[in-house]
Order: sequence, then C-alpha cells, then structure tokens
Amino acid sequence: MAAEIVNSQGKLDGGVESAIDPAFALHRGGKMAVRATVPVRDADDLSLAYTPGVAKVCSAIAEQPELVHDYTWKSQVVAVVTDGTAVLGLGDIGPQASLPVMEGKAILFKQFGGVDAVPIALDCTDVDEIVETVVRLAPSFGGVNLEDISAPRCFEIERRLQERLDIPVFHDDQHGTAIVTLAALRNAARLRGVALGELRAVISGAGAAGVAIAKILVEAGIGDVAVCDRKGIVSAGRTDLTDVKRELAGFTNKAKLSGSLESAMDGADVFIGVSGGTVPEEAVARMAKDAFVFAMANPTPEIHPDVARGYASVVATGRSDYPNQINNVLAFPGIFAGALQVRASKITEGMKLAAAEALAAVVSDELSADCVIPSPFDERVAPAVTSAVAAAARAEGVARR
Amino acid sequence: MAAEIVNSQGKLDGGVESAIDPAFALHRGGKMAVRATVPVRDADDLSLAYTPGVAKVCSAIAEQPELVHDYTWKSQVVAVVTDGTAVLGLGDIGPQASLPVMEGKAILFKQFGGVDAVPIALDCTDVDEIVETVVRLAPSFGGVNLEDISAPRCFEIERRLQERLDIPVFHDDQHGTAIVTLAALRNAARLRGVALGELRAVISGAGAAGVAIAKILVEAGIGDVAVCDRKGIVSAGRTDLTDVKRELAGFTNKAKLSGSLESAMDGADVFIGVSGGTVPEEAVARMAKDAFVFAMANPTPEIHPDVARGYASVVATGRSDYPNQINNVLAFPGIFAGALQVRASKITEGMKLAAAEALAAVVSDELSADCVIPSPFDERVAPAVTSAVAAAARAEGVARR
Repeated sequence: MAAEIVNSQGKLDGGVESAIDPAFALHRGGKMAVRATVPVRDADDLSLAYTPGVAKVCSAIAEQPELVHDYTWKSQVVAVVTDGTAVLGLGDIGPQASLPVMEGKAILFKQFGGVDAVPIALDCTDVDEIVETVVRLAPSFGGVNLEDISAPRCFEIERRLQERLDIPVFHDDQHGTAIVTLAALRNAARLRGVALGELRAVISGAGAAGVAIAKILVEAGIGDVAVCDRKGIVSAGRTDLTDVKRELAGFTNKAKLSGSLESAMDGADVFIGVSGGTVPEEAVARMAKDAFVFAMANPTPEIHPDVARGYASVVATGRSDYPNQINNVLAFPGIFAGALQVRASKITEGMKLAAAEALAAVVSDELSADCVIPSPFDERVAPAVTSAVAAAARAEGVARR
Repeated sequence: MAAEIVNSQGKLDGGVESAIDPAFALHRGGKMAVRATVPVRDADDLSLAYTPGVAKVCSAIAEQPELVHDYTWKSQVVAVVTDGTAVLGLGDIGPQASLPVMEGKAILFKQFGGVDAVPIALDCTDVDEIVETVVRLAPSFGGVNLEDISAPRCFEIERRLQERLDIPVFHDDQHGTAIVTLAALRNAARLRGVALGELRAVISGAGAAGVAIAKILVEAGIGDVAVCDRKGIVSAGRTDLTDVKRELAGFTNKAKLSGSLESAMDGADVFIGVSGGTVPEEAVARMAKDAFVFAMANPTPEIHPDVARGYASVVATGRSDYPNQINNVLAFPGIFAGALQVRASKITEGMKLAAAEALAAVVSDELSADCVIPSPFDERVAPAVTSAVAAAARAEGVARR
C-alpha cells in the first residue's frame, strides 16, 4: 500500500487511489468544509456581517457575555479534541495521523445531530498541557468531545476539564460506548422479562470503555458487575491496581470474585467485551442460560457472533454486518445536540442515563433478539436522544435556557 | 441597545433584533457552519468515511506524514487566532466578544479565497501561553491567521510562531494592510508617472499596521519614510522607544527628521494614516504638490476625504463609501489560498511583494485618481493574488508541491 501511495503523491485526481482503495479516493482533500450561513455578496452584506456592523455585536457581547450564545456559532460548535494516543485499534499514531478519524467524527456530529464540529488534534500528550490548551480554546466552542486519548490519562483529563470549564466535556470512548451498551442491555433484559437488578455482568477490558460501562451499569442498578483486565478480575485484594482500577474495585464485584475472566464468566448473565482480546467458546458455554453476549471488539469480536448465538439469547457486536451493532454514533450526536440546545453547563450522569433510556425506547415496539438497539441510520434516534438529554439537563438544573 | 437585547434574550426568532438593528438579526445563531464533503447516507458510506475504512488512511499518514495534506482538510483550513486584545477599534474586549469578528473573517476567507477557516479565540494573553497554545493546535491546520492581537505583543507572537511552525503564520492587521497599501501606492505613483524611489512618505501610527507598512515600503524601494507615534517622529535620537520602534528608527527616516507629525508632513509626497487620530487641513495643505493622502482610520479618516481632495492628487480611505478603499479582504484570502495551494512552509517578504504587485496590476488598465485599487468585490482579485503568491513561493523555495 505504502509504495502505491507514494506513487500517487502530488496527484490531484483520485484516480490512482480509486484503483488502490475507495477509502483513499474518498478521503482525498478531506471530508469537510466550512460555509457561510449569511450572504456576503456586496458591500451592504459586508457592512453587516463584518465592519462596521459587527462592532456593535461585539460590544453587546462584551457588555453581556451570555449574548455570545445568541450571536455567534459558539453554542452550535463542538471541538473534537484528541492527542492521537489511542486512535481506533491503531494506538499512539500521533495527532496528524488521527485527523481522518476526527474529521469523520465531525461529519457524523453534523449528519446525525446537526451539530457543527471541528477537529482539534493536539501536538502534546502531557496531561497538564492538554488541559491548559483546551481551557484556553474553550471560548470558541460550546462543547468539548474528547476522542481517542489513552487510558488512564483520559480519565484525569476529562475530570479536570469538567472542573475548569462551564461547557459540556464528554469523552466519547467512555460514555458514548457505555450509554449505547446500557440501552442494548435494557432492551435485552426487557425481552427476557428480567430486571437489571437480577443480572450479573462481566466486562472484559478495564480501559476507557470498560470503566465507563461498569459505572453506568452500577448507576442503572445492575445486580453485580465484575471487570477483568489482562490479569483477571479487578478485585480489592489485588496489589497491582492503578488508582482508577482501585476505585473500580470499590464499587464493582460485590460477589468478591477473584481469578480469571473465564472464572468470572461462570454462570454470569451478561458478557461485555471491550478488550480487543478473545474468549474461548467453553467460557461462553458456562454462562447462565439465556445469557447476553456483547462482543464489541472491532473488527474481530471476542467471540464470533455465530458461535455465541449457540449459547446466548442476545448477541451484540461492534460490527455493522451483524445484528445489534453497538455504535457510539447512536449517542454522541443527540447527547451534544440536547446539551447545546439548552446550553447545559455539563453532561450529568442523569443526562447519560436518560440518553440510554431514550435510545432503548426507540425500538421498544419491535424488540427481538436481533433488535435490542436501533440501526445507526434509524432517523428516530437523534431526535429522541436530543429531547431526552435536554429534558434531563433541565430536570438536573444544569440547563441555562 | 443593551436593554433591548436583554429583552430579546432566549428568543430564537430574530424578529425583535430586526426591529432593533439588522446587524443583530443577521448575527443571530452565528454566521458559519461546517458541512460534510462526502456522503454519509448508509453503512457503506460510513465504512469508508469512518470505521473501518478510515483506519488504513490513518495508518498511511502515520507511515508518511506528508500524506496528511492529501487525505485530510488540513491543507485547506486556516485557524483565525485572536486573544481579543485589540478588536477593531474596540480594544481589549476579550476572546468571546471578539468571536463575531473572527467568524466574519472566516467567512471572508471562504467567500473570497475558497479557504476554510475556523475562529480560535484564546482565553489567555500571555505571549508564551499564546505561542505554546497555537503550536499545540498546529497539526490540525494548514495555516495560522493572527488577528486583533495588541501591539507590541503581536510582533513577538508572530515571530516566535514563524520560528516554531512549518506552516504559514500571518498577522493580517500588519501584513494585509501593508500589502494593500503598497498596491494602492504603486498605482498612484504610476498614475503620476513617478517611481517609488522619488517619494517621501509619512506614516501616522506606529502600531501593527504602521510598522508593517513602513517595512514593506522600504522593501519596495520607497525614497524615504518617517513613522510618527503620539510623541512625533520615531527617530534614533528618542530615548522613549520600545524595541520595535527602535528597530523602526534604524531602517526608516533617512532624512533624520525629528519633531511633530505636522513637521514631517511638510513637503511630504505621501501621507498614510493608520493612527485613528486626526491631522489638520493645514498640514495636508503643506504637503508636496499632487501628494497622495491615504487616510485609513475607520470609521473616521484622519482627514475627511473631500477636504483632502482639495490638495492631494489621490485620496484613499478605509471606507467603502469613498473611492479607493484600502481593505484587507483584497489580500488575505488570495495570500492564504496561494500559500496553501503550494503548501508553502511560510509567507515570505517576496510573496507579500508579489501579492501587492498582482493586486495593483488588476486595475492597471483602468487607473484613475478614483481607481488606484480594485473593489473588494472585483472577482479578478483573489485569483490574481493567489497565483502570484503561489508562483513567488515556488521562486523562493518555500513551496512543498
């Protein structure tokens, strides 16, 4: 591939790339642009949109800062911020190589939520530097979507930015995944006629997604949840835990299990894979009857969905070519659209739970083992999530309009 | 005004503002948006624009960083960076209140140069912090347009960013104004049949614009130029000069004049006002025969153009309602479009001079006392500046394609 790309360098037509790969052809020149939403055709237009007319708008905002939301695009635009340290499954490829993902994220914000978004790939990886940089940028944006920042740095960066800023700060790799997973689990439980409180879940993976999923499942009232990292069940007894995992051990694993992932899966009702690893068929075979298997590693699920179907009553993956795709695009566009609509100062746990409930409800009348979560292209999704999040923001007192 | 704005707060329709002021009505909701330039209609589109297709594009850029220019919008997008310390004539109104100007600038980039631009209003004013912040942002952008940053900080910020970054960094309040002023002066000289070397100019104002105009006039071969601040002529003898003004005294004022602005204007061929102050009619009356008066203070020129016309052969202002408007929009869109087109690593003095020459040449066949510079809406301008700047970048060896 590399050699062919070199040969095509400098070419402006995508011809060579199309021959190589449609993804390169599609990416040529990037995937987004800005546009004016007001006319700039003549001197009269210019005198309103720019000098001298713009001066009185600036003066009004200087006098009453909250007017920035009315008379600029601030309240419609989100910064998609990364340092390029954990890009997809590719790892630390740096800020420039992460830009195609950030542009993709930005156009999904627009397409699915009507939210403007701008890729901001930072040339620094120090937590203090990232926090300071985003704080300095914040006046230009209505929200910050953190993306593809490696754990455990991502937890501290998000927490400190939420403390410093009065606009929503949301690490999608954590909360987007957690919200969509909870929505699918709620519907799977409804389908089987059990309450979340009756279920014991096992999460494989203690990174950004695993930690956030454990938190939201506990908030939602799961019976019990054990999180496993490469060394096995994250339990209070372990001496090798990071601060984040120690905290995790404090509010998960009521059963006080210890040992391997496989041992945790024995008799478990729910398996949630966000590890990128694999689980043996025998481990799935030993789960409880009618278990749920969410094997979300992408592109290769922890266990093949066709195999899992032999044991589980509901199977979900991260892939678009199998039923029940756990896809963050079901959450983040509506979550920011709802938060920006009411100028929320933050995205609270209540807003996340409301988003999951609204997302689950979209398919409540068509529930089946192959439909516990809507398709990313279900046009009912974003409006439902948006209004649920806006309502929850009002209920929780973080809305400013 | 303020009270009326308060009353209209929270309204989504611009009705009340239209009644108050069309500028507020036009600004409601901001002046710009982003859009996808590729389809995201179905799972196939998503698999190319986002996962899994995007991964191989990221990997290719990680392997060959220069591919970021081919497969992202980086090479088409400019950051319009300010700290809000010198916004129009309004002074230090802060980052959020500056956003309407930055959005205006962004849509002018798009409308006149086809260049995407994003407002980045920073919540810091310390030079080191601004420099570090912009360096960290740079991976996402193909160029940096510095805007409305107060002097003398703007000089150091631009210089240090140019040293640190391999993309164009351009402080428009300096160089945009200087380029358009030089273009108008070249045509005025042609009209009168004199060479720049035969002219003595006086600049009122030693801020960002005054300093940059003095530099470009000297580079272009002006006979002599004296720059005046509030205390009079900037001359080597003065003990109250900042570093920037001391440097200025070193390469201007060959005639070794000292004293007041009025004394400098005695017999001068060119007056260039970028001070926001005023000059008495008598001072203009004592200039050389057929002098040029560029009274560019906005909205109130240093001397009324109708009065200046009584003495000067060519009069220019910053206003759209008089002939010969010195408007930066004649320069910055084409300058960045040309620099980005060839992926220039910087904007050199040669590229600025080429831009001025190309801008002047647009109206060379229709020269008159009322037409020494094209209208901002002359569609020949941006293409002419763009190709001249691209060619100059190649000639100066800073082009990367």
